[in-house]
Amino acid sequence: MIESFTLQSLGKEDLIDITDTVNTIVTRSQVTDGICCIYTPHTTAAITINENADPSVRRDILKGLSHLKFEQVSFSHAEGNSPAHCKSSLIGCSEMVFIDGGRLNLGTWQGIYFCEFDGPRTRKVLVKIIG
Amino acid sequence: MIESFTLQSLGKEDLIDITDTVNTIVTRSQVTDGICCIYTPHTTAAITINENADPSVRRDILKGLSHLKFEQVSFSHAEGNSPAHCKSSLIGCSEMVFIDGGRLNLGTWQGIYFCEFDGPRTRKVLVKIIG
Amino acid sequence: MIESFTLQSLGKEDLIDITDTVNTIVTRSQVTDGICCIYTPHTTAAITINENADPSVRRDILKGLSHLKFEQVSFSHAEGNSPAHCKSSLIGCSEMVFIDGGRLNLGTWQGIYFCEFDGPRTRKVLVKIIG
Repeated sequence: MIESFTLQSLGKEDLIDITDTVNTIVTRSQVTDGICCIYTPHTTAAITINENADPSVRRDILKGLSHLKFEQVSFSHAEGNSPAHCKSSLIGCSEMVFIDGGRLNLGTWQGIYFCEFDGPRTRKVLVKIIG
Repeated sequence: MIESFTLQSLGKEDLIDITDTVNTIVTRSQVTDGICCIYTPHTTAAITINENADPSVRRDILKGLSHLKFEQVSFSHAEGNSPAHCKSSLIGCSEMVFIDGGRLNLGTWQGIYFCEFDGPRTRKVLVKIIG
Repeated sequence: MIESFTLQSLGKEDLIDITDTVNTIVTRSQVTDGICCIYTPHTTAAITINENADPSVRRDILKGLSHLKFEQVSFSHAEGNSPAHCKSSLIGCSEMVFIDGGRLNLGTWQGIYFCEFDGPRTRKVLVKIIG
């Protein structure tokens, strides 16, 4: 019922386009009308939907979040990755997309991204489809 | 299965109350218990739920986001609308509300808003109801 | 169909771990595979999923949001709690978690938190399970 896949993030922060992988899962499910839920079970990661036409938007979203300068805060958490936890809660660890005609009903310029804010890491994404 | 409607945002940034339109779709669906999912397929837009009693809260949310000063970041994306992409990912392009007794089960002060951060634009909102 | 519970937030801002309460609702539902949706009907509150191993992460998320300094903005809303409305929209008033084998399918370090940004308040959380 729950499908999952693994990915490897690069560098400290990474946005990885997972649209094709999620679409493959939707096709395999043979659900033509429904909702596709995408979830990541990690606390320094997130799922977001944004422009996939120009790859620079991906870097710009990370730049925008860095501009919030969470590194300047004197956090308590000993691991030192509280900026990543904050970004994870701001973006959120799940998204949903409608399924129409057996395909993700994304907008023309929309792609689905996995975000890692405390990498590099091997991470998991879970997908569940409601028929 | 997926209903949609179009709206016209005003100015560079706009929050538009779509609660009544979504409630009309819920009524038409004749679903009495379920979940209503609201989704916008645009990468400089978002959906949020917040106070609808005082119209100034709407302006305040835009003011709060502007306070993050994304315009100061030297972004790569040539279109120049990366601040809008960042705001879209922070707020998120979907929301869900429970349906109870054939109505949206919103809190007393809650309304559903469509947000545009790079307008004015003609935009679409999609609604799907799980019975 | 919709379950709900009440909680009391402490201080101006609070993050309360509601994972056990939500898991109890999941168990009671006897749904083994599905999706659990968690929603708060308040406009200065939010639901987020983040680390529950080290309790300091909870404080750090509030610290991170305070670092955005929404108190410096000259807001219009007369009640004076617009920073809380902004934080509510940034985090979002709902989350969803998959159910697998009758349990919330959270990551090893994930917990579900209710957030209040304008407390202390007596607040409600709604839970709906899709089987």
